[in-house]
Amino acid sequence: MNLIRYGEKFFDELEIAIYRKKNVGVDVELNQVALSSSSERTVTVIRGIKNKRIGIYIVDSDDEGEIKRGIEIAAKNAENNEKDDRWESLPGEQKYADVEIDLDYGIKSLSPDFFVNLSNEAMREINERDKHAMVAGGSAGSQWSENRIMNSHGVDIMQEFGGTFFYLFVVGRKGDVVTPGMVEFEVRRDTNITKDFVVNSILEKLKYAYTVKGADSMEGNIILEPLALAELIFFALLPAVNGERKVKNTTPLGDRLGEKIFSDKITIYDDPWHPLSINPIIADDEGVAARRNMLFDHGVFKGFLWNTYWGNVSGEGSTGNGVRSLSTGGVGIGAHNLVVEKGKRTKSDIISELKNGFLISAFQGAHSSNPDTGDFSVVANPAFKIENGEIVGSTVFMMSGNIYELLRNVEEISDTERKIVMMGNGVYPDILFRDVKIAPVSK
Amino acid sequence: MNLIRYGEKFFDELEIAIYRKKNVGVDVELNQVALSSSSERTVTVIRGIKNKRIGIYIVDSDDEGEIKRGIEIAAKNAENNEKDDRWESLPGEQKYADVEIDLDYGIKSLSPDFFVNLSNEAMREINERDKHAMVAGGSAGSQWSENRIMNSHGVDIMQEFGGTFFYLFVVGRKGDVVTPGMVEFEVRRDTNITKDFVVNSILEKLKYAYTVKGADSMEGNIILEPLALAELIFFALLPAVNGERKVKNTTPLGDRLGEKIFSDKITIYDDPWHPLSINPIIADDEGVAARRNMLFDHGVFKGFLWNTYWGNVSGEGSTGNGVRSLSTGGVGIGAHNLVVEKGKRTKSDIISELKNGFLISAFQGAHSSNPDTGDFSVVANPAFKIENGEIVGSTVFMMSGNIYELLRNVEEISDTERKIVMMGNGVYPDILFRDVKIAPVSK
Repeated sequence: MNLIRYGEKFFDELEIAIYRKKNVGVDVELNQVALSSSSERTVTVIRGIKNKRIGIYIVDSDDEGEIKRGIEIAAKNAENNEKDDRWESLPGEQKYADVEIDLDYGIKSLSPDFFVNLSNEAMREINERDKHAMVAGGSAGSQWSENRIMNSHGVDIMQEFGGTFFYLFVVGRKGDVVTPGMVEFEVRRDTNITKDFVVNSILEKLKYAYTVKGADSMEGNIILEPLALAELIFFALLPAVNGERKVKNTTPLGDRLGEKIFSDKITIYDDPWHPLSINPIIADDEGVAARRNMLFDHGVFKGFLWNTYWGNVSGEGSTGNGVRSLSTGGVGIGAHNLVVEKGKRTKSDIISELKNGFLISAFQGAHSSNPDTGDFSVVANPAFKIENGEIVGSTVFMMSGNIYELLRNVEEISDTERKIVMMGNGVYPDILFRDVKIAPVSK
Repeated sequence: MNLIRYGEKFFDELEIAIYRKKNVGVDVELNQVALSSSSERTVTVIRGIKNKRIGIYIVDSDDEGEIKRGIEIAAKNAENNEKDDRWESLPGEQKYADVEIDLDYGIKSLSPDFFVNLSNEAMREINERDKHAMVAGGSAGSQWSENRIMNSHGVDIMQEFGGTFFYLFVVGRKGDVVTPGMVEFEVRRDTNITKDFVVNSILEKLKYAYTVKGADSMEGNIILEPLALAELIFFALLPAVNGERKVKNTTPLGDRLGEKIFSDKITIYDDPWHPLSINPIIADDEGVAARRNMLFDHGVFKGFLWNTYWGNVSGEGSTGNGVRSLSTGGVGIGAHNLVVEKGKRTKSDIISELKNGFLISAFQGAHSSNPDTGDFSVVANPAFKIENGEIVGSTVFMMSGNIYELLRNVEEISDTERKIVMMGNGVYPDILFRDVKIAPVSK
């Protein structure tokens, strides 16, 4: 805290945020470990406010002298900047949730070797079990984070957390057929990561992929697997619950609090303490107490996510969703672990009752979705055709629609929960939707 | 070298490359210094070969223990990988060029303050001299690099170099007119960077930008400024002189050695020792002696660029153009400082003799050029209309063509030389081309 004392001479308010990250990993390419690596990074972000003028300085060190020097430079930055009349205050002292959090400290000491072995064993098994399979790409590794957020209003919180991940991308080549790439991944908050789930899931899908089926224009049943669902929600829906967009009037949910927006089967909340979360934080990046924030309760819209700045501007207050960019030092609004609540049926039951339909593993192009309207236009790839309750082959097709319409047409939700980190940070089930329009991919 | 000795136990051949980079910088946004920062990074890349199997490990440290541990992990990576039958050898001992290189060691000790002041003074002057101008974005900073490349064939070379840069992006708003963004930048290998060139050049262009002119479909004269020229050459031409593409048969220059490809006004070479170069290296990233490599001499194609691997595969040998990616550890082929030779006329003379035409500062979309054919389709923005030898207003238009055709239609080359670092690393003049087709931007 003596750094905060030191900085108070220069500012009305001051925040010092220190991030330490340790990464270990392996990159896989064309059936080989192309690279293994390890890195440790410390970044200190200084954000000071003087007379409603903000100054930010970032230094990749936690050395006291460097931070003091940084405070002085941040003060100079602030002095020359324009007033932000909307600036109110950094957060004050907080009461943090008293949650029990299991951390696996073993993650901290995993070596690159561990992931080299994991990847090599997985590749060996895939090549043995399917001679036509080729591991085109993938990665495996761990991250451990230690953060400390301090400010001049008495916030001073340290937290640590971490996770492991494994991801492979496999294609099959048989005669003239080159299958779409089959993707599978596992993300864990402990060291119990193994090759088995990823290998088995990919080989199971690859089996169907060699039979390529067409997809005609139609309106019908589709099942989105967790990654595909995460992609649409991350790009087409999540921005709409960002409080900054409410203030700026760029969200279709602006004045719809309390309205039924989705099927009552749909419940979505942000929950850093979900058992699958890999960042079970009690404080956000400004030191504000984190919490479980309901967004859609049985289809009814319950509220936006806020950081301190936009929460102050709107009068709603922060919901503990301040998320800092380490490249700009700025604090935006984000979900810590977005949960789409699971259902009660097994995925295999849902598939087995489907007379006709498609199962979609992933999309391409979801990033071009329009969060102002919820419209999306994506390519389903890889996708699988289902006939009489069975997967009969792989296919690729276009799917255009609107996330609000889609989430009204929910038929079933699986009892699966999968942790996703590539498209935001969340936990997703499989969902069966009815009356979805698809079209062949135009050549 | 004791690390190399240590590693030889595990490998037939071994390379250890250590990179230290120190960066200081400022980001400018909406008339303010949004952020200043400083960072120091050390990365060691270990590349070992055993029995034609390659293992790579990257660690962000130069600690002896970490490197030894990394050697062992790289050995394990290699062991499990497949043989690369094309692998021949790492480079052997080199004779480096005896060139006089001026380094400004002052760059090493520049502080963020220096760039905060530079940016603030530049913004103040721009806002004072043009009340309608707004600095939308920009950055300023310095980088200092210290590299050491060692291998088990006796290569052991240390080098250091650095540069400073300043870049602003300014729009003008007057009544209903919002001008295209005016971009200007300066890159230097010393500490004598000032606001003046960037500020004066932007304000001069902005003056014309408030008058917006249309652009009809036509075929005529256009002048490409250095940045616009660099964009087309980087994306549409430079890949074609990459030796890997010759081996893989994906360059239109494959069998055209000695042929006249361009106007005899066009001479292009790679020259790390050009006075404006900010990386005046004597060894490339594999420790191979760097040199000046002629690519097009008065329009005649003189040869490809090679690293050790592809140089060995083709039998041509390395031209000292091995460039390492610090994210994958792999060594590709790249230009160190691509020079398009300047001409003898001043830019203002060239403009003043033009009855009708356009001056183009930058392009959008050059990255989608096709290096297999040289085809490009870009939006010229910002661009300026020239009538009777004078700039009369700003405009935006489409320009589609082919880099090989374009570089045959050269009319004049300016005596300007500008250092560009955003689009590859090079030195470029202004060039006046005739018979270039342009079209209005479709709405």
